[in-house]
Amino acid sequence: SKRYTITLLPGDGIGPEVISVAINVLKLTGSLEGIEFKFQAMPVGGAALDLTGVPLPEETLSAAKKSDAVLLGAIGGYKWDKNEKHLKPETGLLQLRAGLKVFANLRPATVLPQLVDASTLKKEVAVGVDLMVVRELTGGIYFGKPRGFSINENGEEIGFNTEVYAAHEIDRIARVAFETARKRHGKLCSVDKANVLESSILWRKRVTAIASEYPDVELSHMYVDNAAMQLVRNPKQFDTIVTNNIFGDILSDEASMITGSIGMLPSASLGESGPGLFEPIHGSAPDIAGLDKANPLATVLSAAMLLKYGLGEENAAKRIETAVLDTLSRGYRTGDIYSDGNKLVGCKEMGEEVLKSV
Amino acid sequence: SKRYTITLLPGDGIGPEVISVAINVLKLTGSLEGIEFKFQAMPVGGAALDLTGVPLPEETLSAAKKSDAVLLGAIGGYKWDKNEKHLKPETGLLQLRAGLKVFANLRPATVLPQLVDASTLKKEVAVGVDLMVVRELTGGIYFGKPRGFSINENGEEIGFNTEVYAAHEIDRIARVAFETARKRHGKLCSVDKANVLESSILWRKRVTAIASEYPDVELSHMYVDNAAMQLVRNPKQFDTIVTNNIFGDILSDEASMITGSIGMLPSASLGESGPGLFEPIHGSAPDIAGLDKANPLATVLSAAMLLKYGLGEENAAKRIETAVLDTLSRGYRTGDIYSDGNKLVGCKEMGEEVLKSV
Ligand SMILES: CC(C)[C@H](C(=O)O)[C@@H](O)C(=O)O
Ligand SMILES: CC(C)[C@H](C(=O)O)[C@@H](O)C(=O)O
Repeated sequence: SKRYTITLLPGDGIGPEVISVAINVLKLTGSLEGIEFKFQAMPVGGAALDLTGVPLPEETLSAAKKSDAVLLGAIGGYKWDKNEKHLKPETGLLQLRAGLKVFANLRPATVLPQLVDASTLKKEVAVGVDLMVVRELTGGIYFGKPRGFSINENGEEIGFNTEVYAAHEIDRIARVAFETARKRHGKLCSVDKANVLESSILWRKRVTAIASEYPDVELSHMYVDNAAMQLVRNPKQFDTIVTNNIFGDILSDEASMITGSIGMLPSASLGESGPGLFEPIHGSAPDIAGLDKANPLATVLSAAMLLKYGLGEENAAKRIETAVLDTLSRGYRTGDIYSDGNKLVGCKEMGEEVLKSV
Repeated sequence: SKRYTITLLPGDGIGPEVISVAINVLKLTGSLEGIEFKFQAMPVGGAALDLTGVPLPEETLSAAKKSDAVLLGAIGGYKWDKNEKHLKPETGLLQLRAGLKVFANLRPATVLPQLVDASTLKKEVAVGVDLMVVRELTGGIYFGKPRGFSINENGEEIGFNTEVYAAHEIDRIARVAFETARKRHGKLCSVDKANVLESSILWRKRVTAIASEYPDVELSHMYVDNAAMQLVRNPKQFDTIVTNNIFGDILSDEASMITGSIGMLPSASLGESGPGLFEPIHGSAPDIAGLDKANPLATVLSAAMLLKYGLGEENAAKRIETAVLDTLSRGYRTGDIYSDGNKLVGCKEMGEEVLKSV
């Protein structure tokens, strides 16, 4: 039987709870599909800060690099909110993404038929939404230099960051996006602010150049402000969206809320080679941490993305996805996706129900 | 009777059509309120490019500066989309904002009872939405330097922009936002990305410092990705939002679409002194330009903001706002806000109906 080493990074808040559900689902799925997992849990984020004084210990990064894939829970919490930049939990996550060189972040946003009522959008607008945001993850304003604080010529404080993209950074994320669109419905919308920003002008130019390699994919361009509107107006117009790090952060969260169930949405972060990083797109939800209220399905579906995109184990991935849909069809709901007539369960019980469907 | 000089900048696309409706509404309102307007129309954007070769001729800026207020239609169109940066219509708009030093952009997003069906959000989510985005308009990544293109150490092209804020830029927009919140429901939400960006860390620090001058206003902070979600999840939680130039661009457009009627939404851009700039937040809509299909109400309501915020003529402003609501209550609708049972009219006829209600 095949063997894989998975680095687990439970992190903060509800992270540990949702990761522990995902472990059980992976184990059972593996045993049915002839796959053996070796799990190693390592600290990251606030948990690592408390334990080691830094948000991403060297041991965690090197273990992650040596493994076949990395599954992360969530990062951050009020406790560390006032920390200096280099001691913020979020900095650990950014260092992890950079350290693993996972430049391509895939964020699906799908309105599941079982959960269409959870969306705040009218039913006719929400039904059938199925889009994928491909977000550049290791460049742009998140990492650009120079950055920091300084005193200007008038003696007052300034804070600054640099939004910068090099041609190869745009080319490689564009290729991932075109490949993704090709496997979906063949439509790619590139989002930028090329009417104002030079970084976006280069973005549009490179994406347009790469398009010649994918004549079968239909490419369009949209300004980010318009994209933020169109996601509300008519999200069904989108198939695959490709955009930079900060616009991707904003638009993927907006898209996720359009599905009405951010507690359901997984993500995959991939590099050229080496292990991928898989995580739910929801945060650490410190207010419900430890209360057995979290929705573990985004992490379970992240484990499915791990199998599919990280290990090439499509059958095992499909088994998990089907189990999640089946559990929903049987009426089990955590609080965040609850609606009348269904069965309200906690994090653990939801995990047990998924196991029954695996 | 009082006299004011208004610079009119019809601009591109539907700009001229909607401006001509607004002129008539201003004239009639003025005659009823004892106000006399002197209008001077000047070219800007693509129209100016075609006429003079630059998107903001010096004559336009100096006329605008000498007038009491500036009313703009819309800017941009496919025709000039491939122009170089300094020859884009949008560059004219940015130069105008910078030239008039209008650093505070007020963008209301209100769901009108008459138009609640136009929103793609469920009725219970949309009814009662009434928020104001206060966007910083003359700083941040739109204007920050260095910016441009270059070749990096690997010989490849890079494109870069600088997101930079100085303390005084944040302080002054924060004060406008606190004053605005004070006149509304006393709640201000400052939106940033302080978990990642130094420019946002300074933003949060300064906004928090200014808060001590406004003990009666309740200040909260939110990350921009979360704000993009919360606007979809529960827009009613917001009263006044203050944010930087690029986040304000994105969030105000998203908020506008939540009302379902971007063709209805005005904006005001104000400086410390000197004339304000008033414009609908919709674009130039080149596809319907000249077809008498545009909704002129956003521009008419921008004229009302001009009277209120630009000239201090609150009664005249109120008269226009009431006339617009009355026209909607009488069932008149342009295509963008049409729903069954109402009367579909074009741009001109909508203008005539508003005149009847003034
Ligand atoms: C926690 C934060 C640094 C992170 C980001 O901005 O990338 C998060 O919002 C995300 O989208 O994964
Ligand atoms: C046209 C463009 C430059 C402008 C902006 O980004 O500010 C527009 O989107 C707006 O919001 O007024």
